[in-house]
Amino acid sequence: MSAEIVCVGTEMLLGQITNTNARDLSESLASIGVDVYRHTVVGDNPKRIQQALRDALARSEAVLVTGGLGPTPDDITSEAVAAVLGRRLVRDERLVRVIRGVFEDLGRAMPETNLKQADLPEGAVPIEPQGTAPGYYIETNENAIFVLPGVPWEMKGMMDKAVLPALVRRFGAAATVSHEVLVVGLGESLTHQRISDLVEAQSNPTIAYLAGRGQVRVRITAKAPDEDAARALIDPVEKELRARLGDAVVPGEGSFAARFGAMLEERGETVGVAESLTGGLIGAELAEAPGASSYFKGAVVCYSTESKAAVVGVPEDLLHRHGPVSRAAAAALAEGAARVFGATLGLSATGVAGPKPQDELDPGTIFVGAHRAGATEVRRIGARGDRTHIRSWAVTAAIDLGRRMIQE
Amino acid sequence: MSAEIVCVGTEMLLGQITNTNARDLSESLASIGVDVYRHTVVGDNPKRIQQALRDALARSEAVLVTGGLGPTPDDITSEAVAAVLGRRLVRDERLVRVIRGVFEDLGRAMPETNLKQADLPEGAVPIEPQGTAPGYYIETNENAIFVLPGVPWEMKGMMDKAVLPALVRRFGAAATVSHEVLVVGLGESLTHQRISDLVEAQSNPTIAYLAGRGQVRVRITAKAPDEDAARALIDPVEKELRARLGDAVVPGEGSFAARFGAMLEERGETVGVAESLTGGLIGAELAEAPGASSYFKGAVVCYSTESKAAVVGVPEDLLHRHGPVSRAAAAALAEGAARVFGATLGLSATGVAGPKPQDELDPGTIFVGAHRAGATEVRRIGARGDRTHIRSWAVTAAIDLGRRMIQE
Repeated sequence: MSAEIVCVGTEMLLGQITNTNARDLSESLASIGVDVYRHTVVGDNPKRIQQALRDALARSEAVLVTGGLGPTPDDITSEAVAAVLGRRLVRDERLVRVIRGVFEDLGRAMPETNLKQADLPEGAVPIEPQGTAPGYYIETNENAIFVLPGVPWEMKGMMDKAVLPALVRRFGAAATVSHEVLVVGLGESLTHQRISDLVEAQSNPTIAYLAGRGQVRVRITAKAPDEDAARALIDPVEKELRARLGDAVVPGEGSFAARFGAMLEERGETVGVAESLTGGLIGAELAEAPGASSYFKGAVVCYSTESKAAVVGVPEDLLHRHGPVSRAAAAALAEGAARVFGATLGLSATGVAGPKPQDELDPGTIFVGAHRAGATEVRRIGARGDRTHIRSWAVTAAIDLGRRMIQE
Repeated sequence: MSAEIVCVGTEMLLGQITNTNARDLSESLASIGVDVYRHTVVGDNPKRIQQALRDALARSEAVLVTGGLGPTPDDITSEAVAAVLGRRLVRDERLVRVIRGVFEDLGRAMPETNLKQADLPEGAVPIEPQGTAPGYYIETNENAIFVLPGVPWEMKGMMDKAVLPALVRRFGAAATVSHEVLVVGLGESLTHQRISDLVEAQSNPTIAYLAGRGQVRVRITAKAPDEDAARALIDPVEKELRARLGDAVVPGEGSFAARFGAMLEERGETVGVAESLTGGLIGAELAEAPGASSYFKGAVVCYSTESKAAVVGVPEDLLHRHGPVSRAAAAALAEGAARVFGATLGLSATGVAGPKPQDELDPGTIFVGAHRAGATEVRRIGARGDRTHIRSWAVTAAIDLGRRMIQE
């Protein structure tokens, strides 16, 4: 069964907001095995909304529409749906009472303009409002069309309560199961070289990657009549992938920092950080997971050379001899981080975020360090991109050096 | 002039990533007065990419395409563009050398598969790679088509350096000038109350807001035959807005942190930070601006209670008496931050990020502190939302307390 998503709202075309609804709907649809073939965004314009709806209904069995159901004159999605299906808009008196009730509960008078939200195309099945806007769906011989408000939490509530059950009822549903293998420290091209024959040979499960910030997420997705059968298709492929990618595969679930945190917790390790070019991002990443306080002791952001000496205890003469961006500085920072926070593992990052070179080193020159049980390792990396990109790269590299050290 | 955006990538249709490129491109296009009429997302499928391109070229003078330019077999955007325009793909030998150079700089061998990224439709003008993927554009009598990588930072770099100048060259551009007034510490509802009559009365310039993280960006946008005329429309409106919003308006340009940094630099002040629930985000925000090292000394992320005592020198008995999330702790952290880093201004944040309460304090309870010239101020804030939201709110509140202290 194929579906597409049409989102209505000029604010998206002006770049004022990001279209998160298309992502959230797509993820829900994938969970019941529905293939989404297209997302379309159009503005609050009757002709363009109707054109987008007509095209979508001609191509796809299920069409999900969001946005344009509010009480203002811009909100014209229902008019467009009615026009495309050749139906009238009819006021639903039960919905009028529901909407009045919502305002009564809020202790506010209902503006008369809100009554418009009870006008649905003839034959539509209403979906209870989560906020004040009802949604609805219409089934024809060819299509099922679902019309939902654009406010994300209202849309999501209706998706779970009404849309997914209706889709399963109409089209049945096979199980789609995905599993993600996280690869860090190998790069996209090398990851590809090692597994490209598998990627090309596979059709169920499929293998896809998503790369960024020095991380590659390899996603294996299988379709089968039920979840167990889907997992049975994934398992041998995943095993083969893991064997080929070796220690670049990070065990666990979730984000890289969450997996690293779980590894620390399991092993009873704690971590302290001394970071320079990353300005606090390594700490922020480690502190992201709920419960991080059990393994994350703290971080020092030593942005000035003096603070590297004063707060982390890196000898000033070492900084003068080797420079603050150097192998020696990264090592001393990692050792200082472990000492200052009384952590079993110390991590560090120093480098040139750019845009200008520093001490004759190009932007993107990064040294990351890790110190544990008397041993210190440093790695040099040449990253490309803007400041944000270089700093994210350094965050991944520093955590990965620590990850490899505790995994050994 | 009308434009539309076509984004290619199955990962968006599976709901694995959010399409931020369409938003970023739309915002850039709006800045030069280009109207965007549609966003389309299709997967890595030759037929559907070609269909989307054909439809877009028939409707719009400018079409911007992102994604599918990588080195893997999934990456088939250039094949689709060539097919739709009826052109061959031709290897660009200069680009081959550029791509080889990128890998040499990284100290890595170039996989042969990457050569494919130098194959462009005949007649295309290459755009220099930001990472390893080049972009390009093709002009015909009817259309200009721009093809950019899907990686956001690569796409953005090319947009600024090559796409906007080419669009202005081809289509001219009436001047659209925007100026942004940044409001911090007042809230969206209060900001709205003070200026809503202006917003409703204005059509050129228009006034729009974007709120989030305790900041409201009020954007005034004028269209006129040239820039001077547009600015002349903006000036009186901006003056009136500033008068009504008072000291909640942050002077300067760019992000809140960049404005704060410029204020510090002008006044010869330096800043040190001691942060807890924000895990490094205050430091990361202050370090964001190029040149931040002249005023940002460093930060301590004291995630554990011990580190608040050991690294920042907050007396342990104070922490036991008042708790680590308290007015007293925020004050002592701000004082410690100034002392430890030898900075003129110390900032601090401590609080409960959630999801669980801590020491009987609800998630969202935040204390921020600022210390300067012997005086310390603390502010208590009740933020709502998830961990990410609560932490961003704390970052803004801490910087704003410092901003108000040095502005007095």
